[in-house]
Parts: sequence; C-alpha cells; structure tokens
Amino acid sequence: MIDAKRRTTPERGATVEMVEESAATGRVREIFDDIKWTKQIDFVPNFWKTLASHPPLLDDTWQRLKRVMAPGQLDARTKEMLAVAVSATNGCSYCINSHTAAAMKLGMTAEMYGELLEVVALFNATNTLADALQVRPDVFP
Amino acid sequence: MIDAKRRTTPERGATVEMVEESAATGRVREIFDDIKWTKQIDFVPNFWKTLASHPPLLDDTWQRLKRVMAPGQLDARTKEMLAVAVSATNGCSYCINSHTAAAMKLGMTAEMYGELLEVVALFNATNTLADALQVRPDVFP
Amino acid sequence: MIDAKRRTTPERGATVEMVEESAATGRVREIFDDIKWTKQIDFVPNFWKTLASHPPLLDDTWQRLKRVMAPGQLDARTKEMLAVAVSATNGCSYCINSHTAAAMKLGMTAEMYGELLEVVALFNATNTLADALQVRPDVFP
Amino acid sequence: MIDAKRRTTPERGATVEMVEESAATGRVREIFDDIKWTKQIDFVPNFWKTLASHPPLLDDTWQRLKRVMAPGQLDARTKEMLAVAVSATNGCSYCINSHTAAAMKLGMTAEMYGELLEVVALFNATNTLADALQVRPDVFP
Amino acid sequence: MIDAKRRTTPERGATVEMVEESAATGRVREIFDDIKWTKQIDFVPNFWKTLASHPPLLDDTWQRLKRVMAPGQLDARTKEMLAVAVSATNGCSYCINSHTAAAMKLGMTAEMYGELLEVVALFNATNTLADALQVRPDVFP
Amino acid sequence: MIDAKRRTTPERGATVEMVEESAATGRVREIFDDIKWTKQIDFVPNFWKTLASHPPLLDDTWQRLKRVMAPGQLDARTKEMLAVAVSATNGCSYCINSHTAAAMKLGMTAEMYGELLEVVALFNATNTLADALQVRPDVFP
Repeated sequence: MIDAKRRTTPERGATVEMVEESAATGRVREIFDDIKWTKQIDFVPNFWKTLASHPPLLDDTWQRLKRVMAPGQLDARTKEMLAVAVSATNGCSYCINSHTAAAMKLGMTAEMYGELLEVVALFNATNTLADALQVRPDVFP
Repeated sequence: MIDAKRRTTPERGATVEMVEESAATGRVREIFDDIKWTKQIDFVPNFWKTLASHPPLLDDTWQRLKRVMAPGQLDARTKEMLAVAVSATNGCSYCINSHTAAAMKLGMTAEMYGELLEVVALFNATNTLADALQVRPDVFP
Repeated sequence: MIDAKRRTTPERGATVEMVEESAATGRVREIFDDIKWTKQIDFVPNFWKTLASHPPLLDDTWQRLKRVMAPGQLDARTKEMLAVAVSATNGCSYCINSHTAAAMKLGMTAEMYGELLEVVALFNATNTLADALQVRPDVFP
Repeated sequence: MIDAKRRTTPERGATVEMVEESAATGRVREIFDDIKWTKQIDFVPNFWKTLASHPPLLDDTWQRLKRVMAPGQLDARTKEMLAVAVSATNGCSYCINSHTAAAMKLGMTAEMYGELLEVVALFNATNTLADALQVRPDVFP
Repeated sequence: MIDAKRRTTPERGATVEMVEESAATGRVREIFDDIKWTKQIDFVPNFWKTLASHPPLLDDTWQRLKRVMAPGQLDARTKEMLAVAVSATNGCSYCINSHTAAAMKLGMTAEMYGELLEVVALFNATNTLADALQVRPDVFP
Repeated sequence: MIDAKRRTTPERGATVEMVEESAATGRVREIFDDIKWTKQIDFVPNFWKTLASHPPLLDDTWQRLKRVMAPGQLDARTKEMLAVAVSATNGCSYCINSHTAAAMKLGMTAEMYGELLEVVALFNATNTLADALQVRPDVFP
C-alpha cells in the first residue's frame, strides 16, 4: 500500500526521494550545474532532482533533452511549443506547466499561445473523429 | 455485430457511407468546393467525404479548421507541425499521414521533420517519467 | 523479431492463434455458443476466438461483458454508445467497428450517431484545453 | 522554468490569468452571462474564466458546446454521460468533476452512474485486449 | 456544475461518497475484511472505499484483482511492475502511487525501479516514433 | 494533402523513405550490422530502416534501446514484457507485434502471456475507475 508520509513529507517526491542540491555530489552535481547554466536559472527543478535518484536516467535524459532542444532547423521556441502540444495531449501537469513557462520565456506571446491551444484542441477532436469514422486512406481519384 | 461488407466495399468508410463528390449537393457541395479551393487540391480527401455523412459536423469542423489553421501569429507550417505532434501522440494514422504531408508541402524539410520527431519522442518519454515519479510542483527555493 | 507469417496467415491473429469454432471444445465451446445465442448471431467474432487462446481470459471477459452490457438502469443502446465513445477516444479500430455496428443494430440512427460524434469530438478537445490551461477546481464564489 | 507563484496565487490559473467576472467586458461579459443563464448557475466556472484569456477560443468553444450539448436525438443527460465517459478515459480531473456533477443534476442516479463506470472500465480493458492481441477484422464465415 | 463542497469535505471522494469502514455492512464488510487480510494491511485504501459506493463494482473489481494479481506463471512482483508500467503510461496518479509502493513492498529495489522507468520511458518514445513514421509491418526479406 | 503513392509503394514507409540495407553506408551500416548482431537476426526490421532516414534519431534510439534492454536487475524477458504492456496500453500495432514476438523468443510462454494480458487489461480498467471516481490519496487512518 502507498505510504502516505511519502507523499506529504516535503523533502520527498511521491515515489522516490529527490536529491537536493546540497546533497548532490560527483556526476549528479555536474549535471545539476549544467542544468542551471544551460537554462540560466538559479535552482534545479524538481523533475531533475527526482530523476537524480536514478543517476543513469538523469544523465541520459538530460543529455538527450539538451541535445534535442537546442536550436537547429527548428528554433528553441518552436520546440518548446511542440513540447506543450505533446504534454497537453498527454495531460501531464508538471510538463505542461514547465514547458508553457519555458515557451513564454522564449517569447511565446499570449496570442501565439491562444493559437497553439486552438490547434491542439482541434486535432484532439479531429483525431478522434478520424478514428471513430475509420476514415479510409486517400487514394488518387 | 460488425458488417464486414461495410469495411470492404470501396465506396464506403468503415462506419458510415462517404458522400462522393458526384453525389454532393447544396451546402455539402459548397464546402467540398471550398476545401479544394482552400487547399489547392483537385479532390476531396476521405476525411471530409466521411464527415459529409453528418452535414452539421462537416460544416462545423471545416469552418473551424479553416479558421484555426490560417496563418496568424503562428505560420501555417508551424501549425501543421503542431498537428503532427498531436496526431503522433494520439497514434491517429490518417491524421499523421495527412498532416505530415501537409507540413512537407508547406516547406517542412527532412531535417525539420527529424527534429520534430526527436522532440515528440522525447516528451512522450519525459511526460511518463514525470507522471511515474509524481514529480512535485516547483516552488521557489 | 516479429514473424510476418503470423500476421498474414488467415487462420491466425497477430500475436496468438485463434480458436476456430470447429476446434472449440468443453468450456470454450459453451462460451462460444452462449455468445452466439446472446448476441443472436451465427458466427463467433474474432475478438472472442482470439481470447479463447487463453480460456480464463475468455471466460472472465465474456461473463463480465454479458453482465455489464445487459439492460439495467441504462438501456442496451446507451451502453453501446458509451462503448463507442470510449473506443473512439482510445482509437481502438476493432472495438470502434464492433460497437458502432452493435449500437446501430440496437437502433442508433444516423442522427444519433452524428450527435454522439459531436460530443466525443468536443470533449476530446475540451479535455485537452482544461489540461493545457491547468484549470483550477471551482470553489464557491 | 515554471513560475511557481503562477500556480499558487489564487486569482490565476496555472498557465494564464483568468478573467474574473468583475473584470469582464464586451463580448466576454456577454458570453459569461449566457453561460450563467444557459446553465442556470450564479457563477462562471473556472474553465470559462480561463478560456476568456483568449476570447476567440472562449467564443468558439462556448458556442460549440452550447450547440452540441443541447438536447437533440440524444437527451441532455445522455450527452453528459458520454462526456463523463470521454473525460474518464482521458483522465481529465476538472472535466470528470464538472460533467459528473452535470449529469447528476440532470438526473443520473447512483445506479446509472455505477453502470456507466462499469461500461467505461470494461471497454478500457477490452480496447487494450483487442489492441494487444491485434484482433483481425471480422469477415463473414 | 461541480459542487465544490463535494471535493473538499474530507469524508467524501470527488464524485461519490466513500463507504467508511465503520459504516460497512454485509457483503461490503466481507470484502473490506478480505482486502485487509489479503494485502496484510490494517486499513482499507480509498480506492476500495470509493468503489463500495457501487457494491457490484467493488465486488467484481476486487474478485478480479485478487485472482489476476495472485502469483501464477508470473510472480507477484512482476505483476505489480506491469501495473506500474500501465499506470504510468496512463498517467493515473493514485494507481502509480499505490502500485509503486506495492511493488517496493514485494522487493522491487531502487535499481529495479530505475530500470523499469527506463523501459517505460523508452517505449512511450518509440511507440510514438513507430506511429509517427507509420512503420510498415516487417515481411521476410 | 497526403500523397497516396507514398503509402502504397513498397519501398517506402508512410511518411519517409526507408533506408534499405543495400543502400546503407557509413554510420547507418554500422548500426544496421549492430542491430542484426545484437538481436541475432538476419535482416533489419522496418522500424530501424525507417529511423535511418534521420541518422541521429537512429543512432540515439538504438544506443538507448540497446543499453536499456540489456539484462540488469531485471532480466531481458521481463523488460520485453514491460514493453508489451506499454505498447498495448498505447495501442501501437508495430510495437505490440514486435515486442510480443521478442518476449516469446525470450521464453514468455502462452500462460505467461495470458497472465500479462490479464494484468494489462485489469489496470487499464482500474486506472479509469480511479480517475473517474477521483479517488483521494490514502492517508493513515
């Protein structure tokens, strides 16, 4: 059964203990420093402190996120907006909050966000319609 | 029980009869014409021919899609890429095919598509991690 | 790796061998007969022939479905329409086809189906909006 | 990064500022009044106050919801029960709470709700089974 | 509309009233006792107290869970880990917490949990890639 | 609009061209060889030939999959069974087929598979029930 204290004690996440910055050593500390420097923030978000309970998962996830989210053919803001679209479709609260804020920090205006929401809502509706109606693939007439 | 002929007869979709262009009259014909003109294509995709079995649904869906997908603060290609991200997360085949092709037509290069896939795959992974670990909301340190 | 023949040989399902009616004996035969009698059809749908590869799963699933889908405070057609709503939201093709056909057999008209589709599409959109916007629970003003 | 104050300040939603009733003007005020009148309630639920941060999204969503949820071939209660089925399948807390309460207000009894839950749970199970087993479409024997 | 008191009054769940242990009689009490004895815990978790508002759903769900989760060809810990994988993929908080704790009680170590998370995250990513790319079924070369 | 030839021409996947083994050079060839050697198969599955259209995605995905799926505290078969549970919950056909076959190759018996299906079906049902009922977190009595 779930240990309720696990959820209510502030220094823990729900299913594992977070690694606080003051307790981070070695590779975990290096990654924590890299996260703060890369994101230009002065604290380590809970997602990363929680992943640190499994250092290989922290390392792999951070390296990939850092590489994938770097500007390329798509700019950083577009990538964050795609992250919001995925997170909203999956209903992941932490991720929605985190990436909406990140996209705003990168210049997503209220108008852009409104348009993003319209697109995301529309395709969650039409995806269901296409599935419900079992629409056959298009062939040339 | 399912009527297997319903699925295998070419002039039908899986759960309803499509309205073919030659059979379209009145409001449905107007919308079909608007779809072809707006998208600059010479046939009506099956999604719309299927929705035409319920004219109010065709009308409402097309008017909204036309409005939502028009360039605004976000350009048309970014909107189609968001549509691909949502459709891939939902696993809707018809929609994935349709919007990937539309994004390509609007200039999404192979490199952009590769980056889109990386972002979509990454956040489907991290969404699950954030949920699995029940990451607590960030508060200021 | 996947055995491609497994998918293309007609007498098999994709991941397990179906139990054909002619090969059914004992408890599986009893359930097959009960399915045909209860649904008033003259063949056993593939879903049940596939579940028969694991008789306890066939038995448990059929007994539950038979009990749950029987008319109660909700009539059988409403229950089938709820099944369509769930299956469309999950994008399960087999289930969508099967339960749409079943609902039609129980009297769901084209108009009712159109309204069902509108509701299902609407709430797949608004669910995403409520999640994306992280709408706070209502409290009395 | 996420702005934690954004989530904890009562007069805000998580990702945007809500428009309070006292601050609503013009078209937003008209829609707020229509929501209260149509639903016969004396406050505007947070979903709509949050959507009001993007007035075109508020307008489009409310007009569609009002049209779609009006009694037609399906009565209002059946439509709300379909909304519950979709929202539960998607795991959208706000929507589940809102539409369960709405269905109850429209006369869904505890017995009906229990049957609804049984159907929704059953098909979330069988959808997965049909997918897992890759059940082939039925053809006539 | 949602009744906010329903959500904030401690002796209620969000959409129905829970049946407290002290109020349980007859078949519900028998099941409550069986839950505590089977799980070797001294209280009835909220999931079961909530299901008790619909006794047939409580009875059916508990009997099936008890049968399905009993050790068979798969041991109890592996079954709980599968439950965590499903619950994380669906993003069900209560279920994630409950089954992660249960798996830990059955001996899932931090290392095993880390590996579980890696697998679950990986396949949520690759599932989306396979869908996005519409990968064709393998055939023998 | 979707290019129907894209879907029906055998040497293509649905949204990108696959890289055939005979056309693979450099890093892609190395990875293809590693896939065949690691999996002890004599052809490259379509998933990897499709990812090869974006070499960095192929490289990153394969390296991660190879590391994550290697036996650790969890054995290879348990990891494949977790992959089946995730893929079935997401309804990803290609992945379901591929990982069910892989688990069977690693010794998953029909009985184990039946138990896996029971667990996966059960928790897709109970996840929805816990969400629908908005079950409150457990606290110590």
